[in-house]
Amino acid sequence: MRLKDDIAAFLVREFPQTKVTVEAVGGKAATVRHKIGTAELRPGGTVSGPVMMAVADVALYVAILGEIGLEALTVTTNLNINFLRKPSATHDIIGKCTLMKLGKKLVVGEVTIYSEGREEPVAHAVGTYSIPPRKES
Amino acid sequence: MRLKDDIAAFLVREFPQTKVTVEAVGGKAATVRHKIGTAELRPGGTVSGPVMMAVADVALYVAILGEIGLEALTVTTNLNINFLRKPSATHDIIGKCTLMKLGKKLVVGEVTIYSEGREEPVAHAVGTYSIPPRKES
Amino acid sequence: MRLKDDIAAFLVREFPQTKVTVEAVGGKAATVRHKIGTAELRPGGTVSGPVMMAVADVALYVAILGEIGLEALTVTTNLNINFLRKPSATHDIIGKCTLMKLGKKLVVGEVTIYSEGREEPVAHAVGTYSIPPRKES
Amino acid sequence: MRLKDDIAAFLVREFPQTKVTVEAVGGKAATVRHKIGTAELRPGGTVSGPVMMAVADVALYVAILGEIGLEALTVTTNLNINFLRKPSATHDIIGKCTLMKLGKKLVVGEVTIYSEGREEPVAHAVGTYSIPPRKES
Repeated sequence: MRLKDDIAAFLVREFPQTKVTVEAVGGKAATVRHKIGTAELRPGGTVSGPVMMAVADVALYVAILGEIGLEALTVTTNLNINFLRKPSATHDIIGKCTLMKLGKKLVVGEVTIYSEGREEPVAHAVGTYSIPPRKES
Repeated sequence: MRLKDDIAAFLVREFPQTKVTVEAVGGKAATVRHKIGTAELRPGGTVSGPVMMAVADVALYVAILGEIGLEALTVTTNLNINFLRKPSATHDIIGKCTLMKLGKKLVVGEVTIYSEGREEPVAHAVGTYSIPPRKES
Repeated sequence: MRLKDDIAAFLVREFPQTKVTVEAVGGKAATVRHKIGTAELRPGGTVSGPVMMAVADVALYVAILGEIGLEALTVTTNLNINFLRKPSATHDIIGKCTLMKLGKKLVVGEVTIYSEGREEPVAHAVGTYSIPPRKES
Repeated sequence: MRLKDDIAAFLVREFPQTKVTVEAVGGKAATVRHKIGTAELRPGGTVSGPVMMAVADVALYVAILGEIGLEALTVTTNLNINFLRKPSATHDIIGKCTLMKLGKKLVVGEVTIYSEGREEPVAHAVGTYSIPPRKES
């Protein structure tokens, strides 16, 4: 729990505007949540695309922090997202990230995005983060 | 000006939360602006990645509306974004979209994203939108 | 086995140059193989990037044919690939595809690419195919 | 001409199988050509997708070599390609690359791909290469 709490606090500090919260982190993986209210909806009752992009970006960031420690200088270099199905207007968005490569300079991971409680994903993203040179200890 | 005003009004209705505004539209292209204030910044003075993703998404949407008319059912299917340079914390973000393909089912365009007044882009995105079958007139 | 053999024969006809062969297909998934010989290698003993892109493209195509039947007009619209690790020069390349969305117009799937016998993937791709309107039967 | 000839010779050595040739290089840009014959065609008279992916990959590689010098350890980390129109079966494929970012660790560029003599592109790619640490001189 310690790691999760540390990362949650760090996230609030680094991304003060984000509505994404940490559900789980560790083992080269992370799960995050974005509460869905009227501010996230478009007419017709669907979740805005940029909300899902933010979920993908933060899920990757959290999974990486879980491996390399609290490192603000880690930045996204590439994000590719496919929108698969219309999300529910009445359920939170959940993003589940798995890291596929944890290199010295680059980290690559994928994020599957769900409307909570549904089996089929609403979107899928793959992203790359660049990590700064590690400090010697 | 009529087209631009119509699309600007439509955008406010369809994306009520967006802070992106329309600067120009027409000729398979569009320019949009995202005002940058403290709500868009991360500690260290850089613009949040999801802000730039939203600019890319809306720039594409506006350019497409400029060609096919006000069509709410047009949805993003894929967006790929590369982050190139650290954006300025004190200048608005400008997105310039050019459509590369305007098909019956799919539209593909690219968006170059700048900190206003700088020559070198801060990000570059390519996206695909799916458009619903055209109504017979 | 019938489906696999039919698709293997169709693949030879549609992609007469491809060295990719079908290992398994069905259940919204497919596994393909690319034999690696000197023609696929670069100096230093690594497999050429375009070889892995071809594996990704064909793996998606085979998985889709397994669902919609032998349909030559199915075409790639987008492919995004991340190269994760240096492939082995002495093992075949294996691509394992899973379809994430099987829509009426678009199919989206992911492909994890391995050097045979290794646990960690050498590349990962996500692609979209456009499928022609289904014939009424 | 010296730079172009050096890179052309280097390309033959590093990618001994490639059919891509260098047309022009310099100024953070490159133009390459892929001759189209029956070996590149699919039934129905279209150029195979993997041929265009190879053109994109090599165009980026050539543009980068033009900036950093002959460096075999430069490797693709990400490539995203959109297929826009059916290529001609009777014209060579031309790839025109422009680099958008030339960083110390990562280079990002875009490639527009044409059937020679046609105005509208058949495909568009964006790719990232990782470059090894520069040697001190």
